[in-house]
Amino acid sequence: MAFRKHKIINDPVYGFIRIDDAAIFQVIEHPAYQRLRRIQQMALAQLVFPGAVHTRFQHSLGAYHLLTLALQELKNKGISISAEEQTAVKLAVLLHDAGHGPFSHALEGLIAGGLSHEQISRLMMQQLIKEIEGPLEMALSIFDRSYPRHFLHQLVSSQLDVDRMDYLMRDSFYTGVAEGIIGYDRILKMLTVEDDELMVEEKAIYSIEKFIIARRLMYWQVYLHKTVLSAETMLQKIILRARELVGRGVSVPSSPALQFFLKTSSPVDLPDAEWLHLFCQLDDMDVWMAIKLWCGHTDPVLAWLSRALLNRQLFRLELSPHPTDQQTVARLQEQCLRKFPFLHEDDLPYFVYTGTASSYAYNPADENIRILSSQHRVRDISDVENSLINHTVSIPIKKFYICYPKSLTEAML
Amino acid sequence: MAFRKHKIINDPVYGFIRIDDAAIFQVIEHPAYQRLRRIQQMALAQLVFPGAVHTRFQHSLGAYHLLTLALQELKNKGISISAEEQTAVKLAVLLHDAGHGPFSHALEGLIAGGLSHEQISRLMMQQLIKEIEGPLEMALSIFDRSYPRHFLHQLVSSQLDVDRMDYLMRDSFYTGVAEGIIGYDRILKMLTVEDDELMVEEKAIYSIEKFIIARRLMYWQVYLHKTVLSAETMLQKIILRARELVGRGVSVPSSPALQFFLKTSSPVDLPDAEWLHLFCQLDDMDVWMAIKLWCGHTDPVLAWLSRALLNRQLFRLELSPHPTDQQTVARLQEQCLRKFPFLHEDDLPYFVYTGTASSYAYNPADENIRILSSQHRVRDISDVENSLINHTVSIPIKKFYICYPKSLTEAML
Amino acid sequence: MAFRKHKIINDPVYGFIRIDDAAIFQVIEHPAYQRLRRIQQMALAQLVFPGAVHTRFQHSLGAYHLLTLALQELKNKGISISAEEQTAVKLAVLLHDAGHGPFSHALEGLIAGGLSHEQISRLMMQQLIKEIEGPLEMALSIFDRSYPRHFLHQLVSSQLDVDRMDYLMRDSFYTGVAEGIIGYDRILKMLTVEDDELMVEEKAIYSIEKFIIARRLMYWQVYLHKTVLSAETMLQKIILRARELVGRGVSVPSSPALQFFLKTSSPVDLPDAEWLHLFCQLDDMDVWMAIKLWCGHTDPVLAWLSRALLNRQLFRLELSPHPTDQQTVARLQEQCLRKFPFLHEDDLPYFVYTGTASSYAYNPADENIRILSSQHRVRDISDVENSLINHTVSIPIKKFYICYPKSLTEAML
Amino acid sequence: MAFRKHKIINDPVYGFIRIDDAAIFQVIEHPAYQRLRRIQQMALAQLVFPGAVHTRFQHSLGAYHLLTLALQELKNKGISISAEEQTAVKLAVLLHDAGHGPFSHALEGLIAGGLSHEQISRLMMQQLIKEIEGPLEMALSIFDRSYPRHFLHQLVSSQLDVDRMDYLMRDSFYTGVAEGIIGYDRILKMLTVEDDELMVEEKAIYSIEKFIIARRLMYWQVYLHKTVLSAETMLQKIILRARELVGRGVSVPSSPALQFFLKTSSPVDLPDAEWLHLFCQLDDMDVWMAIKLWCGHTDPVLAWLSRALLNRQLFRLELSPHPTDQQTVARLQEQCLRKFPFLHEDDLPYFVYTGTASSYAYNPADENIRILSSQHRVRDISDVENSLINHTVSIPIKKFYICYPKSLTEAML
Repeated sequence: MAFRKHKIINDPVYGFIRIDDAAIFQVIEHPAYQRLRRIQQMALAQLVFPGAVHTRFQHSLGAYHLLTLALQELKNKGISISAEEQTAVKLAVLLHDAGHGPFSHALEGLIAGGLSHEQISRLMMQQLIKEIEGPLEMALSIFDRSYPRHFLHQLVSSQLDVDRMDYLMRDSFYTGVAEGIIGYDRILKMLTVEDDELMVEEKAIYSIEKFIIARRLMYWQVYLHKTVLSAETMLQKIILRARELVGRGVSVPSSPALQFFLKTSSPVDLPDAEWLHLFCQLDDMDVWMAIKLWCGHTDPVLAWLSRALLNRQLFRLELSPHPTDQQTVARLQEQCLRKFPFLHEDDLPYFVYTGTASSYAYNPADENIRILSSQHRVRDISDVENSLINHTVSIPIKKFYICYPKSLTEAML
Repeated sequence: MAFRKHKIINDPVYGFIRIDDAAIFQVIEHPAYQRLRRIQQMALAQLVFPGAVHTRFQHSLGAYHLLTLALQELKNKGISISAEEQTAVKLAVLLHDAGHGPFSHALEGLIAGGLSHEQISRLMMQQLIKEIEGPLEMALSIFDRSYPRHFLHQLVSSQLDVDRMDYLMRDSFYTGVAEGIIGYDRILKMLTVEDDELMVEEKAIYSIEKFIIARRLMYWQVYLHKTVLSAETMLQKIILRARELVGRGVSVPSSPALQFFLKTSSPVDLPDAEWLHLFCQLDDMDVWMAIKLWCGHTDPVLAWLSRALLNRQLFRLELSPHPTDQQTVARLQEQCLRKFPFLHEDDLPYFVYTGTASSYAYNPADENIRILSSQHRVRDISDVENSLINHTVSIPIKKFYICYPKSLTEAML
Repeated sequence: MAFRKHKIINDPVYGFIRIDDAAIFQVIEHPAYQRLRRIQQMALAQLVFPGAVHTRFQHSLGAYHLLTLALQELKNKGISISAEEQTAVKLAVLLHDAGHGPFSHALEGLIAGGLSHEQISRLMMQQLIKEIEGPLEMALSIFDRSYPRHFLHQLVSSQLDVDRMDYLMRDSFYTGVAEGIIGYDRILKMLTVEDDELMVEEKAIYSIEKFIIARRLMYWQVYLHKTVLSAETMLQKIILRARELVGRGVSVPSSPALQFFLKTSSPVDLPDAEWLHLFCQLDDMDVWMAIKLWCGHTDPVLAWLSRALLNRQLFRLELSPHPTDQQTVARLQEQCLRKFPFLHEDDLPYFVYTGTASSYAYNPADENIRILSSQHRVRDISDVENSLINHTVSIPIKKFYICYPKSLTEAML
Repeated sequence: MAFRKHKIINDPVYGFIRIDDAAIFQVIEHPAYQRLRRIQQMALAQLVFPGAVHTRFQHSLGAYHLLTLALQELKNKGISISAEEQTAVKLAVLLHDAGHGPFSHALEGLIAGGLSHEQISRLMMQQLIKEIEGPLEMALSIFDRSYPRHFLHQLVSSQLDVDRMDYLMRDSFYTGVAEGIIGYDRILKMLTVEDDELMVEEKAIYSIEKFIIARRLMYWQVYLHKTVLSAETMLQKIILRARELVGRGVSVPSSPALQFFLKTSSPVDLPDAEWLHLFCQLDDMDVWMAIKLWCGHTDPVLAWLSRALLNRQLFRLELSPHPTDQQTVARLQEQCLRKFPFLHEDDLPYFVYTGTASSYAYNPADENIRILSSQHRVRDISDVENSLINHTVSIPIKKFYICYPKSLTEAML
């Protein structure tokens, strides 16, 4: 029997998103998917960009919407895609981020025993196969690159996938950093498939350049903004401290689900159904609520960090092209011990720490962007003459940072 | 000493918001204000409009931004406003919503012992007067209508205030219901002051009409959308049930702050510093976390409602111009008892209930909109000839609803 | 053989417009249609709103685009529309404005011997039937209301047609009067057909209100803006003067096509092929070029008016709810004779004149807007309870104006 | 006496533009400036991008608006700029493009005897100095780089000037090629001045990259779009042919002003007042009207080209990284002679011709973009480490084209 119901969802970025498939509808209604309403897309970036409070739920729907547009264009160009393949690739994109835990990338690996969000997304798909009728097995094989038609995977996950297009559009929209906006409609109109590989027509080359530059800008201006980095490293320190205290047997109040993950320290090899069930109960709320409770904890380190993050009294973070020299670190640590008498020397890494941030504008080694010339010649975008996406852009930029309380001497580096 | 620091905040609605006053800066940095980052502006509207996850924090900053534009226009027109008055009215608008609790209007009165958010905003201002240097006393008198220059109050709170302008702009922006967008810049350019009363120039009349119609549209299409209403009434039932259980001595786990307010049932007359301190610790997180915990509660009513709201399995809500007849209610209640064997008859009002929703497009009795003609004649907008804002629009629209589980017979009314 | 070529046109209002039908393509490429590139949509409104320089060409394409969206929605709702009907209604909308002459409405009737633009559009369709293969006869019958399925006509021409939707969107976009923007996508999604009549679903009622109010605003804020009216009446006076001089046998240089129409003063009953051929050679350029030439004409009235319009030295125009009293007119005329010694008394109506401007927000007597309730009840929008579109809005607003040189005494009325 | 009048102009790109200076106001009202209303900014690009019909008038106002924002930012940063300097630099930017003739760049040099538009703008300023009270002499010295404070010139004319910012914003807006949109507000906020040179703060580097890439995209996607190039070269051929015929003594009807310039073939060294007066009477209308008249000219070359351009029957233009080989050209010319029997061999260059198009993304040799680091170190943007604006981007891209009638064999290159 055909699925008669269709649903239209308001979206501020694209206007309306249409759902017209029973399996898609069931996935969206599933508690594991509804949970994405409670996980913010950009973690703590909202402490710098107050508008950036959008969720993984919206982003997944947005990527789904762009995919439907891409499929329409490819079909207009005569590329045959079966109805089942269409539903499957839509399911794959809807679920590609479902495995994210609280605060997404900011806490990835720290809570879920070292598992990546892709690994957990895969576990969820395996679970949903049992519950929902529809081509979820095919969706999983597309997600896993095991489905023979490789372009379907590339639509979901490559350097020109609908995931990136949506997050650039959406993160630009919600942060107000309009410079990240890309010409997604023009790019989608230029997509094509040759030998089951996703390509873009040569005349799209300037739009692709713009897309890569927009992403580069969003990385350094937003995602790796020094205050955002500071907040996210503080959040990581809080979770690490809580886990350390739990390990020491100290009581650290939190929701039962979060408690479970704070206790499970070793990497998980084969998570069972119970593990997945508990993971699906975790969202940003558990962590925020815990931080609020921990503001009054007897451990002064946990309490101090929690209060600081909650009230946005963030560490100073300084970025540099070179690593911080050890003398500077030592001097800051000394000052820190004087300034915060409750600190033990062992706890210094919670208050003064260094690290690196890096990003690729374009990585020619990973699901690269292929340009199809009018003479049906296929080239990597970094090989096209006059292209901007040359070797310079293909080298990752790496920056070094040091982070410490603002109240320490401020003119340091 | 002059305040040299100025801060620019990215805002997706207006681009950039500039903070250039020390007192404003201190208020924004205060934990009581930072808390607004964790209270969503539109409560549960995000269950229907997934983009509408913006916060009271952004809204207050937005209203502040519009106010600075309005003040600039008025000064350009030769209206004298002292530097102190400017800072004071900006403080008033920044803090006008600070007294909102979790889920704003949806739970107003239910948690804070019957106090309105304006009453609590006032308490907060009184508290901040002690902590922050700046014209907070004057801000309070502007907020309270006791400051002699009435137009300053009207900028903050009237039928054409910057609060309404920002929430219409922002809620339209985030829901994607672009039809709610208003010509705020044109309206601001038409503001003027005559005898210390706020007016708009006559040529702005069509823009004002558009503003009132936009608000009317947002009410019925968004704020009072039947699914939004359903979710918000369910949330209220959950809090009422929790409070009832607490009253009966049943253990209902929650954060300490929420626990305090669930226990305090009688209306508060003179809240003390402790009351305010605890209130300032409450935000959406406390309630979401409680609902998540209550999904497994031993009380089947609390548990059922909590799971339903968390997973967006909402009651059906039907709107009608007439009250539901008692027979229909009785029939639904009967079905309900059969369908949910755990329900006692006393608990029926948690599962089948009626209510009303109403809104004014324009209320000529409350801080009305005055039009100043080129001959300096002042009239209420509803008295201007050819105006659309006539008596029809000035009558509140009232609709009746009934709400019940979807699994009951669906073709009812 | 199927039409394989499809063409995508960039449009700043909607993004991309797709042409995928051979007959549509041929019409767009036809010189009579390309001519619309040289006729501005808003005539002289650009003298007040410098951005409003868009053309009839863009507007017709825009209306065509909205029509394709509307047809898609109706087909999604199960309304059967044959492929031929689709092409025909698209042709009808593309050509609905093709009969506009230079400066569109501002000179309508003045140049083309009293024929309306609809009458000329009809003549053009009759001509194109001979040249282009495609359902142009059906397009003409839809345009003429003689095709049995009335809703197709209503899509092209009614109070909720794609013509109005596009011109509101486009004129708002290009003038920068963003308040005229309407929720066209929401309205299109709510369209339906019952008994071959176009309807909107009841839940769209607030969007329809917004649409009508937006149109009302655009009329009084833009289309009938007093400076725009002034410029357009001056343009009419220029053409009338040129025609008068031609009638008197005075040489008035202009393009051959314009010369023909200046000479043909009596109303045309049956325009022949030659008439239509010459009309199709007219566009804004002929009139602008003539005005530029006439700046140096020996007739001082024609020369003065031409220089004034070209250099934007416009008459003052005053709007009032009441007609100007005769005394004021007489006094202004007297002053005018003194100020401009070259003026004969007979020429006074070129320098001091009165007139009226009026507009309907909603006219229930003309292709009205029908609302379909969920119980399949059909009502006019002005009959729906709580509707804003009541009797007040259904009365046309009429304003009176007087126009005269700014150099005359300025404080008159 | 202070200038009390201020004027607000609606602009679709920026909302409102405010004029608040008497000298600025007089320049805008001057016929030589009003004339810019009749010169389209993008010449024939509208034949490909129908929305791109905006004018030099709007662009000049837009650049003026961005300049006022830039001056405000610089003053906020403590850079002292006198009131006179402010007015002067505003006048300079308003008039920077006033010397453009019909179809701007497309006919630059062809009509005005080899003078560039900057040279003519300078002549106009010299003329206006005599007519308008205000710092026009200073404006001219800023325009001419002779004013000592170099940053004022750089605001008006450099690789990061308000002219470029406005035309990118505006051309993107009107073409609908949204990818050309730049973050002008962010860039303006990052401008600063050091030793009277314009700089940008280091953190703006990603915005500058985006700006340069946007310009690169607009060049190849819009300004040098092959169909736009084709139309513009056809227009040039028409003017060249008309001039040739006039030279031969053949009568070529046109407006008196255009006639004058068609007759004046030799480069002008010292244009006199009469020359400038006639130039100021020229605009797009003269050329369009002439083309319309020439459609029926006895010279078949002029008539054929005029009809083709008017009705958008454009030549095919093929772009290539390499010059077209002479054999291909010869073969096409042969075909051309067979296809168009009216063509003499001498006339072949009007129907088959080759040429080059080139553009710089960034030219480090010309008023370059300087980055100011937080340590007050000044570097060219192409020298900043990790910068994208490296040597690759600083080499101009050059493409070769051949142009010929579509009816010739189409599969040529």
